[in-house]
Amino acid sequence: MRATYDALIEHGYENLTIQRIGDEFPKSKSLIYRHYDGKDDVLVALLEFLLDHLKSQMPQPTTADAHDCLRNVLDFVLAPDLDAERAELTNVMVELRGQSPHNRVFREYFSANDRTFRRGLADIVERGIEEGVYRSVDPEPVAEFVLTTMSGATVRRATTEDVADVAAVRRELDAYLEARLLRAEESGLSRR
Amino acid sequence: MRATYDALIEHGYENLTIQRIGDEFPKSKSLIYRHYDGKDDVLVALLEFLLDHLKSQMPQPTTADAHDCLRNVLDFVLAPDLDAERAELTNVMVELRGQSPHNRVFREYFSANDRTFRRGLADIVERGIEEGVYRSVDPEPVAEFVLTTMSGATVRRATTEDVADVAAVRRELDAYLEARLLRAEESGLSRR
Repeated sequence: MRATYDALIEHGYENLTIQRIGDEFPKSKSLIYRHYDGKDDVLVALLEFLLDHLKSQMPQPTTADAHDCLRNVLDFVLAPDLDAERAELTNVMVELRGQSPHNRVFREYFSANDRTFRRGLADIVERGIEEGVYRSVDPEPVAEFVLTTMSGATVRRATTEDVADVAAVRRELDAYLEARLLRAEESGLSRR
Repeated sequence: MRATYDALIEHGYENLTIQRIGDEFPKSKSLIYRHYDGKDDVLVALLEFLLDHLKSQMPQPTTADAHDCLRNVLDFVLAPDLDAERAELTNVMVELRGQSPHNRVFREYFSANDRTFRRGLADIVERGIEEGVYRSVDPEPVAEFVLTTMSGATVRRATTEDVADVAAVRRELDAYLEARLLRAEESGLSRR
């Protein structure tokens, strides 16, 4: 997987070949062929690996209150700057996602991934309502909106040159969450 | 351009070849080579053509009030259903955008496109403030947020199977705009 990932970062999806994956691989190229049915098959395995890796990096809900959990997720995904490794990973994910319109298998992976992520966000909102921190809204559309905004910021960051203003997106998303979710007294507090 | 577009829709970016563009082209393949330096060059021309086409489709500011203009843009981009042609165009744009992390020329085109689009949104917000319909906010972060949300909805719609809920995104974006932009009296009106 490391070899595929390194080759993908170096050459990009379009120019990726088994040969180039093999070049990054300390063992022999035939080993790759023994395990996988060609480039597409290797890339599906890579996608699976990367989605799991991303999931493991994502801040998990803690015993902290729901709003802190949500903030942790936003702090992670909408960090104003990404270190080199995160930036590379983001680029690769956006590139693989760009294959989805014409690749049914990729589309299924991204669908499942988005569904899980949205479910996680909706769970946090639901917990916030139970804790009395959030208004009693329908959690699903709020989760959909937050996920969509994060997807947009991720794509714009990876595909434009100094154009995406992720810090502004974060501030406006906070304003939305405050108006939409936080009860008046909490909202007053969070304004300080 | 039509031949390139048709070939791209049929085969996807990764499997696109000059041969396949030629297959869609009523004239001879050598004509393509006479005009373009290979596949990448054809695709840059296609990207330029499609971005212009998209721009021409976009609802233009009218003499209507700023909030109507903004609504027209959102109605267009966040339409709950896309007809086959719009869906295909969206898929192709997402696919080409997915090349941007590893393709500097594409990245420059998408950067310029996003910049223009964001400028247009900021102009509408600015006009709304002058008209006294909107609060006196900073138009730039609002425009950035609206654009990012629209990008996210476009990407999720093109890359997932029945997972993106664009109608929910639209409703939540409206809630954000109401809380963030509309003056109290307008906001009361818009709630009816």
